[in-house]
Amino acid sequence: MSSALASTATFLDRIGRARAVMAERGVDVLLLSVGSDLPYLSGYEAMPLERLTMLVVPRDGEATLVIPRLEAPRVAEQPGVFSLRPWNETDDPVGIVAELAGTPAVAAVGDTMWARFLVDLLGHWPTSGTRYVRSVEVMNALRTRKDAAEIAALQAAGAAADRVAAQLHAGEIALVGRTEAQVSADISARLIAEGHDVVNFAIVAAGENAASPHHHAGDRVIRAGEIVLTDFGGTMAGYCSDITRCVFTGEPTAEVAEAYAVLHEAQAAGVRAGVVGAACQDVDRAARAVIADAGYGEYFIHRTGHGIGMEAHEDPYMVEGNDQPIEAGHAFSVEPGIYVAGKWGMRLEDIVVATDAGPLSMNHANHALVTIA
Amino acid sequence: MSSALASTATFLDRIGRARAVMAERGVDVLLLSVGSDLPYLSGYEAMPLERLTMLVVPRDGEATLVIPRLEAPRVAEQPGVFSLRPWNETDDPVGIVAELAGTPAVAAVGDTMWARFLVDLLGHWPTSGTRYVRSVEVMNALRTRKDAAEIAALQAAGAAADRVAAQLHAGEIALVGRTEAQVSADISARLIAEGHDVVNFAIVAAGENAASPHHHAGDRVIRAGEIVLTDFGGTMAGYCSDITRCVFTGEPTAEVAEAYAVLHEAQAAGVRAGVVGAACQDVDRAARAVIADAGYGEYFIHRTGHGIGMEAHEDPYMVEGNDQPIEAGHAFSVEPGIYVAGKWGMRLEDIVVATDAGPLSMNHANHALVTIA
Repeated sequence: MSSALASTATFLDRIGRARAVMAERGVDVLLLSVGSDLPYLSGYEAMPLERLTMLVVPRDGEATLVIPRLEAPRVAEQPGVFSLRPWNETDDPVGIVAELAGTPAVAAVGDTMWARFLVDLLGHWPTSGTRYVRSVEVMNALRTRKDAAEIAALQAAGAAADRVAAQLHAGEIALVGRTEAQVSADISARLIAEGHDVVNFAIVAAGENAASPHHHAGDRVIRAGEIVLTDFGGTMAGYCSDITRCVFTGEPTAEVAEAYAVLHEAQAAGVRAGVVGAACQDVDRAARAVIADAGYGEYFIHRTGHGIGMEAHEDPYMVEGNDQPIEAGHAFSVEPGIYVAGKWGMRLEDIVVATDAGPLSMNHANHALVTIA
Repeated sequence: MSSALASTATFLDRIGRARAVMAERGVDVLLLSVGSDLPYLSGYEAMPLERLTMLVVPRDGEATLVIPRLEAPRVAEQPGVFSLRPWNETDDPVGIVAELAGTPAVAAVGDTMWARFLVDLLGHWPTSGTRYVRSVEVMNALRTRKDAAEIAALQAAGAAADRVAAQLHAGEIALVGRTEAQVSADISARLIAEGHDVVNFAIVAAGENAASPHHHAGDRVIRAGEIVLTDFGGTMAGYCSDITRCVFTGEPTAEVAEAYAVLHEAQAAGVRAGVVGAACQDVDRAARAVIADAGYGEYFIHRTGHGIGMEAHEDPYMVEGNDQPIEAGHAFSVEPGIYVAGKWGMRLEDIVVATDAGPLSMNHANHALVTIA
């Protein structure tokens, strides 16, 4: 996963910076399992299984990777980063973690760790003795500021997604007469062919289905004369792409064309607002203002964007109420939408990285509502 | 997902039985999110996202599905099973859950729920007032006893996996000269072609790589004259397959043939031990005894099996220390292995359902170490 981009030196640097944040925030131990924080710090990705894998990072002292003995051969050792503590099938791995971590006053636990392991930890460390916080309290300061290699990886993934969008715009992906599910499978295959290791999603929603933002591509046959919303992305060398483009199977109706012009302008306004020093919510406000001013406010039913990196969705979120300042290296989607239930929906999305020179888009595919014959 | 197999009446029955177990065990509220418990009870599967979806099931009173507003159109409503409580982008969904659930003395939380939501719940209900238990305390009594429709689904998935194994045995899947990763992709495509909706894994490990039980198929080219371990499975109509077969690219060496004969006998002994009323650990002991008696005990480095159903791994586990009695409807793998680090490894696996008439195998593919030219 991230090991393609990171060396032992990188992991040592990251774990050192994580410890500095722990000291600053009074976190005694960081506990990472399933999810991206673990490979970000160690190069190793935990299998999402009932057998616990957990990196125990005390603020002071050596980090230890607690791992099922049968997974241990899969670990690429990183001298100085962590030591291995394999456990046997009849051991209690949570007990091993509790012993390694002592009795922390504050424990930061991985966001996507399975809750069953936290339930077991509560038996060892009830909240009367330990305060639990989310690992983002420690990791966000590192993870949200993408370094040059990470930005390059996001650009490469974005370019691969753009190539699939270009194929869609060129009419190479047949639409009319096929089901949404068939088109979704076609897009998925193209994401892989263009270099992604994994497809994370390929939403295809035709006509009235496009009014459901997370529509699951189904048996609905695409017809002539309707909007088709596609939102797809995958993971390439450990980093994610995510792009949304809408096309129209024929000449757009006046109603749709008019709304799309507003959407197009709103998305561009959101991108322009993504500057270092602005608040995350300013991106949302900028896009939303354009849509509201045009009278479509009630039809924009979700936040404007989410952070992206090793995860398809991660901090920071571009949502009202998030006054966190945008920093250089923050990567996020800008994806306003307009959804008219029972009729049609539309969304337009690029990934943007904030830099000191302004917002840098990872996507350059045509932003227009292209007509597909 | 499970909705293919279950109707509103089934969900009503299941939720009623879950409530009976809650009453018996003194659980005040059941909280289900990402994972199989939720679709098992409601037909709805939560997206694994930062936006919380959670079914709140009080022991008495109506169940409520707390769901992001933009996901709400995806829900197939089940009248009488649950009501919907959509939340908006700027709401606090954990606060909504806490309000719906009151202040429980005992809360059962889903195993694979993301820990971040439990961390947030701890802010509402510290362990001084609430005891947390795993949802399996409630759900295992239901989930582990597969009904006739579930057993039929496991049989259908097993038959589909068997067909891929038969293609392997017939030499239709080229091995020598290809990489493990290429063969893994080939097997994955065949699992889909035979009816699976999703591939969960397709381990291909050649020669010395087979000594790592969860080896990740890589660039290693398969050569003539070595063992190739394949372990693959997927999900079909909501239920999982899982099968392991080894083949030899040529005539097996005496050393390998001898060990395989022991493995074959051990696996059959494990299956025979899977009878109603025996302990789960008896399956492990039966398989392990054969391997240990033949002098390979130190090379069998994992438990003998895991439960299977909507999840690829679920309760009950066939492991020393698990004295839980096997009941009719329990479905589990029997998969002993022998692993000689640096040289070779082997494993043989079927899925078995315990019935009152004895163990019923879901897999019938050839159990021999077939030679592939």
